[in-house]
Amino acid sequence: MKKTLNIVKVGGSVVENDESLNTLLGAFCSIKGNKILVTGGGKIATSLAAELGIPSVMIEGRRITDEPMLRIVTMVYAGLVSKYVVAELQAKGVNAIGLCGADMNIINCVKRPVGRIDYGFVGDVKNVNATALRTLIDAGAVPVLCPITHDGLGQLLNTNADTIASSIASALAADYDVTLTYCFEKNGVLLDPDDPTSVIREMRKADFERYRDEEIVSGGMIPKLENAFNAIEAGVNKVVITNAQNLGTDSGTECL
Amino acid sequence: MKKTLNIVKVGGSVVENDESLNTLLGAFCSIKGNKILVTGGGKIATSLAAELGIPSVMIEGRRITDEPMLRIVTMVYAGLVSKYVVAELQAKGVNAIGLCGADMNIINCVKRPVGRIDYGFVGDVKNVNATALRTLIDAGAVPVLCPITHDGLGQLLNTNADTIASSIASALAADYDVTLTYCFEKNGVLLDPDDPTSVIREMRKADFERYRDEEIVSGGMIPKLENAFNAIEAGVNKVVITNAQNLGTDSGTECL
Repeated sequence: MKKTLNIVKVGGSVVENDESLNTLLGAFCSIKGNKILVTGGGKIATSLAAELGIPSVMIEGRRITDEPMLRIVTMVYAGLVSKYVVAELQAKGVNAIGLCGADMNIINCVKRPVGRIDYGFVGDVKNVNATALRTLIDAGAVPVLCPITHDGLGQLLNTNADTIASSIASALAADYDVTLTYCFEKNGVLLDPDDPTSVIREMRKADFERYRDEEIVSGGMIPKLENAFNAIEAGVNKVVITNAQNLGTDSGTECL
Repeated sequence: MKKTLNIVKVGGSVVENDESLNTLLGAFCSIKGNKILVTGGGKIATSLAAELGIPSVMIEGRRITDEPMLRIVTMVYAGLVSKYVVAELQAKGVNAIGLCGADMNIINCVKRPVGRIDYGFVGDVKNVNATALRTLIDAGAVPVLCPITHDGLGQLLNTNADTIASSIASALAADYDVTLTYCFEKNGVLLDPDDPTSVIREMRKADFERYRDEEIVSGGMIPKLENAFNAIEAGVNKVVITNAQNLGTDSGTECL
């Protein structure tokens, strides 16, 4: 029987607020067995960029990452957020290790080709080094991954944190019984965005495609669900999209 | 017979300049066997702080680290510099992993007590987790350590990079035949600061104390040499202070 592995991605406004982040970290600590945390932090990056007079340009929910912006996201994601989270987890008795995709070549990406849009230094995942992650997990460490990756040729890249969570979940599905949980500030995928109780409890890929065509799910929820179903198709046991406050409880949307 | 371990600390203006840094990284890659890199980056932190309107206060060569400055150094040391170096080393075929002292609880510090001077969030090394470093080295990884540590209670701290290099060298001296090399922009400890050829080739602790009393060595060189002799006393095989361009050659000052 395979060992379990819980991969939790936390993003949205949860990371920006010390109280909500610490609640989430407390719940993460309570998860038994092997685990990995994936953190975002886009709003902190936007705010630091503004302080430095660098405009944040978002297209379809994705950040355009020119060189000054790459410096900002590297500092915020791999430095400020990652190490704050690691220090908090260590204080709570979890043997966290904060990593980006360049560390031990954990996530190798290819710079997104310039098409209709030039995203700049944005990386699409090419390969996950499952062996390196297994080595760290076997050593009793809890990887905390941030959305900075590299191309293996010396270039750091900015990669969507939801995609990172989905990619590592998929790469580790052969070795572990993986549950992937996307935590954010909403209760799950909502039928009515204005009604927090209208959580869709279960969703299959065909449901998603229908909801998307009917524009019941839209915006940033579409790539999140695409990542969720990519993971399911790659053999991940279970993907849950839920409120960060509800991590560890049986709530939110389960993708099957 | 113990395996060799080379610990290289690079600081000063070497880190700020892409060309000198890349030369140093090339020489670091050529070192055979187990190795660890310790990076500084103070001048980049000073420059980012200035851009954000935060003054850098230095007393006796040590940075006063209030909360805004702690954010800056965490972003610059653990994010920008660490991950840039890791991506470059990975491109050169070295399996680098960028870490701060909070990661796997590698360096546990105590916040420096407020005395004559309040250094703020500055940490003095209490304990090095040699087991964690050995685990990573045994897994074929090359740790790249930055001068951010923690107190184990959730507080990140700023710790002098020379001290980090000396502390980890000392902690690993029981397991490895350790050589510690301090790389900076000068050729070594100079008898005459205006004459780059006046390198003191060998120095014992008694020599250091005499040079210090005669003010031949002064300023930042004093704590660097104190760190060097602390390492020697803890069983480190050899400590070399040399120009970053000369890493791997038989030059600079050797502390015995």
